[in-house]
Amino acid sequence: MSYEKLPLDEFYKTIDELKPQFIQRLKKAIAIPSVSSDENLRPKVVDMAHFLVDELKALGAQDIQLKELGVQPPPVSNPNIKLPPIVLGRFGNDSNKKTILVYGHYDVQPAAKEDGWATEPFEMYHDKSKDILYGRGTTDDKGPVIGWLNVIEAHKKLNLELPVNLLVCFEGMEESGSLGLDELVAKEANEYFKNVDQVTISDNYWLGTTKPVLTYGLRGCNYYQIIIEGPGADLHSGIFGGIIAEPMTDLINVMSKLVDSQGKIQIPGVYDMVAPLTKEEDGLYDDIAFSVEELNAASGSKTSLHNNKKDILKHRWRFPSLSLHGIEGAFSGSGAKTVIPARVVGKFSIRTVPNIESGKLDQLVFDFITKEFEKLQSPNKFKVELIHDGNYWVSDPFNSAFQAASKATQDVWNVVPDFTREGGSIPITLTFEKELGVDVLLLPMGRGDDGAHSINEKLDISNYIQGCKTLGGFLHYYSKT
Amino acid sequence: MSYEKLPLDEFYKTIDELKPQFIQRLKKAIAIPSVSSDENLRPKVVDMAHFLVDELKALGAQDIQLKELGVQPPPVSNPNIKLPPIVLGRFGNDSNKKTILVYGHYDVQPAAKEDGWATEPFEMYHDKSKDILYGRGTTDDKGPVIGWLNVIEAHKKLNLELPVNLLVCFEGMEESGSLGLDELVAKEANEYFKNVDQVTISDNYWLGTTKPVLTYGLRGCNYYQIIIEGPGADLHSGIFGGIIAEPMTDLINVMSKLVDSQGKIQIPGVYDMVAPLTKEEDGLYDDIAFSVEELNAASGSKTSLHNNKKDILKHRWRFPSLSLHGIEGAFSGSGAKTVIPARVVGKFSIRTVPNIESGKLDQLVFDFITKEFEKLQSPNKFKVELIHDGNYWVSDPFNSAFQAASKATQDVWNVVPDFTREGGSIPITLTFEKELGVDVLLLPMGRGDDGAHSINEKLDISNYIQGCKTLGGFLHYYSKT
Repeated sequence: MSYEKLPLDEFYKTIDELKPQFIQRLKKAIAIPSVSSDENLRPKVVDMAHFLVDELKALGAQDIQLKELGVQPPPVSNPNIKLPPIVLGRFGNDSNKKTILVYGHYDVQPAAKEDGWATEPFEMYHDKSKDILYGRGTTDDKGPVIGWLNVIEAHKKLNLELPVNLLVCFEGMEESGSLGLDELVAKEANEYFKNVDQVTISDNYWLGTTKPVLTYGLRGCNYYQIIIEGPGADLHSGIFGGIIAEPMTDLINVMSKLVDSQGKIQIPGVYDMVAPLTKEEDGLYDDIAFSVEELNAASGSKTSLHNNKKDILKHRWRFPSLSLHGIEGAFSGSGAKTVIPARVVGKFSIRTVPNIESGKLDQLVFDFITKEFEKLQSPNKFKVELIHDGNYWVSDPFNSAFQAASKATQDVWNVVPDFTREGGSIPITLTFEKELGVDVLLLPMGRGDDGAHSINEKLDISNYIQGCKTLGGFLHYYSKT
Repeated sequence: MSYEKLPLDEFYKTIDELKPQFIQRLKKAIAIPSVSSDENLRPKVVDMAHFLVDELKALGAQDIQLKELGVQPPPVSNPNIKLPPIVLGRFGNDSNKKTILVYGHYDVQPAAKEDGWATEPFEMYHDKSKDILYGRGTTDDKGPVIGWLNVIEAHKKLNLELPVNLLVCFEGMEESGSLGLDELVAKEANEYFKNVDQVTISDNYWLGTTKPVLTYGLRGCNYYQIIIEGPGADLHSGIFGGIIAEPMTDLINVMSKLVDSQGKIQIPGVYDMVAPLTKEEDGLYDDIAFSVEELNAASGSKTSLHNNKKDILKHRWRFPSLSLHGIEGAFSGSGAKTVIPARVVGKFSIRTVPNIESGKLDQLVFDFITKEFEKLQSPNKFKVELIHDGNYWVSDPFNSAFQAASKATQDVWNVVPDFTREGGSIPITLTFEKELGVDVLLLPMGRGDDGAHSINEKLDISNYIQGCKTLGGFLHYYSKT
C-alpha cells in the first residue's frame, strides 16, 4: 500500500468495541416500518425522522432541523397527506476545517412476510452462523445512515475531534421519487449547505460480494413512447382483421427496428456520440472483481450477451443500451382476446453515457422512428415523444475524495478498492453536484447480493462494521487533502 | 322476382296486426336482466328461461324441457353456481313434414345506464319518432328469439297449420362461451334433435343498414402465443440493459415478421391454401350493398386497407388475416417503468377461410416462427403454441334453405337479399352442422348498426316486424322444397 497511513487504529478498534451497540441502533431503526410508498404507513416514516432527530441530539448535533415539504402532490389517496420531513443536522462549524455533506434516506421499500421473507422484515434478525443482519432497510439505506451516526459515537467515546465539519441530510421519500428534495437542495445551497466542500452518498452497493468499490459513474436514462392510433375504439379482429390498418402491426414493426437481439442499438448516430474507449480506460477493467458467472447468478439465467468480464462491465457502465419495456393499450392479460387495439403506446428507454447529448439523442430517435413509420405508408396517426430524461454522471476517480476513500478502504479491508460505475441512475447525485457545485463520492457499504428491493434484504455484519470504519477513515483522510 | 309466390298475405297481415302485442312481448323479455357473465344476475337468467317456458306453453308447445347443465366450471366466484338451463320445445311431430330446429339465446351482454346509455338498458324504450326499440337484448338475441314465438302466435291466430315441425333450442350462456351447449347438442342429436332436417340461427346482422342479407360463411380463428423467457425474474434496465439478451427484443422482432402494414401475412404457404377466387365468385361481390364509407363509419377512422367495396368484402370474408393482439408479461401500464420483463407472451391470431387446413396452418406458423427465432441466435428460451382454434364455416347459398329464405325475404322486403359471409365466427354453427349432419342457415333479423355489444343497443321496429314475417315465410317456402 503506497500511501501515508494515518494513526486511526484506536478509532477502528473503538468501532469494533461498539459493535453490539451499533447492531442495537440499527435494530431500532429497522423496527420502524418507514415505507414511503404506503400512505397508511406515513406516520411511521415521520416516526423514523424523529428517531433520527433524537439520535442526532444525543450525539450532540447542532442546528437540527426538520424541513417540512408540504402536501404530497397527486396521485395520492389522501389529498391532504404530508410529505415526510427532511432531517438536517450539523457537527462542527470550524472555518479551518473542510465541510462534508452526507446524504442518506430513512424510508424503505415495502415488505411483508407473505412475500416470501424467511423472517419478519421489520424485526431485524441476526443470523449468527453467517453473521448477517436481515431486515428491510438493513442495506438500503438505514445501515449506511446509522453508520454515519456510529462514526460520530466512536469519535465521542474516544474524545476524538471530528476532522471535518459534518452535515447530514436524510430524506424520507427516496423510494418514492425523492419528492421535494431537489427544491430543498436548491433552496439550501447557499443556506444550510453553504460552504460544503464535498458530498458523500452511501446508497449503492459493491459490484460483487467480496471486494469493496468506490463508484464514480452512473448511466443516464432517456425514456420514450411511440403512440400509434387508428380506429375510434378497440375493434373485433373477426370483423375488421384484414380490412383496416392495425396500430399494433405498425408499432411492432417500428419497435423491431430499434435494437437487435445482440443488444446493438440500430438508430444511426447514437454510438458516434459515445466517448471513445482509450487504452488507459480499457486497462481499468482488467482488475475489477467480476465474472460472467456472477452476472448469470444475478440474472438467474445464462443469457449474457458477452462472454467475458470486461465486455460485460463496459456494456453495463460506458456503452448505451436500449430496452423495450412494453406496450400500453394492447391486450396484456392471459388467455385469448380477439381484439384489435385502437391506440397503442410502445415504451422504450436508452441508457445514456458520456458524451451523449440528451437533446441530440432525442432528435436522432425522433428522426429515425419517424422515418421508419413513414416507410410503412400507414394511414394511422403516429407520435413519438420523450417522457422522462435524466443525465448520466461521471466523476474523476483520482480526485481528493475518491483518493481519500481509497486509502480508508485500504486501511480497513487491506485491498485497493475497485473503481466502478453503475448502469442505473441515482438522480440525487446530479442534483447535489449541480446545485452545490461540488464533487460527489459514492461510497457504498453493502454488497451486490444484499437484495435491496427484494425479499430477505440483508447486510453482512462485516460490511456494516468495516463500513463504519471506512466512512470514518474517509473523513480523516479527506481532511488532510 | 322470378319465383312462385306462396299465398302468405294473410299471414304477413296478421303479423302487422299483432305488432302491439309483439312489442309488449319483447318488452317483457328485455325487462329481465339475464346477463350470463354476472353471477349475481344468474337467477335472472333462470327467470328468463322460465319466461320462455311459459310463453311456449301458452303457444301450445309440446314436450317442453329445461335441460340442466350442472355446475359452472371454474373460474367462478361461487363454486356451486349452476349453469342456466337450455330450453327445448316442439311444435308438431308429423313425419310427413320437414323438421326445422331453431336456435337462439336468451342471455345478454352486461349493461348499465352509467356506461353511457341514453335510456335504462333493461326498460325497453320505444322511440316513436324513429320507430326504434332500444334496450339490452333487443337485437342480440331476444328480438329474434321472441320473433319465432311471434310467428307461432300469428299461425295460431289465423288457425293456420305450421308447415313444418318446429323445434326450438334456446340457451342462456351464449355471451359467456356457450358452456355445456356442445355436449347437449351431441347428446340430443339422436334424441330430441332426431329427424331434424335443417337448423336456422338468427344471431347475426345485416352487413349494413338498408339491405337484408342471408349469411352463408364465417371465418375461423386459430389463436397462437409465442413465449420467450430469459432471466429468472424481471430485471432493472439500468443494471442489466446491454448485457443480457432481453426477451422483449426477441419477441418484438419475431412478431414483426408475421404481417406487414398492408395486412399481408408474411408466413409462407398460407395464401397457397386459400381457395382461388373464381370469376363467378368475384361477381357475387358486385351487387352487395356496402362501401368504404360504411367501413370508415364502423371503424371510426379512415384506416381502410382497400379503396373499394369488393376488396374490403373479400378481405373480410374470404381471405385470411393476421392480427397482433398484445403481449402478456411486459409493462402495460401508463408512465415509465424501467423494467426488463423476464417472460413475455406475444398473442396473435389468424382468421381462417376455405381451404386452409387448420393443422397444416399450425405447422406453417410454428415452422416460420421457429426459424425466425433461430435467426436471432438468442440464448433465451422460446416456445410457440396454439391456444385455441375454431374452424371456418361455409355453406351453399343455393341450397334449399337459402333459396327458401331468399324467397321469403323477397316477399317481405321486395328485394333479393345479399348473400354475405362474416369475418368473425359463431362456433355453434359448426356444432350443429357437425353433430346433426344437416345444413345451417344464418338468417339475421337486425341491422349492422344495432350495437349488439355496445351501449344503446337497438332493433328497428321494421326489422322486428318484417323479420317475423321473413322467419315465418321461410318456414312455408322451406316446406315446399
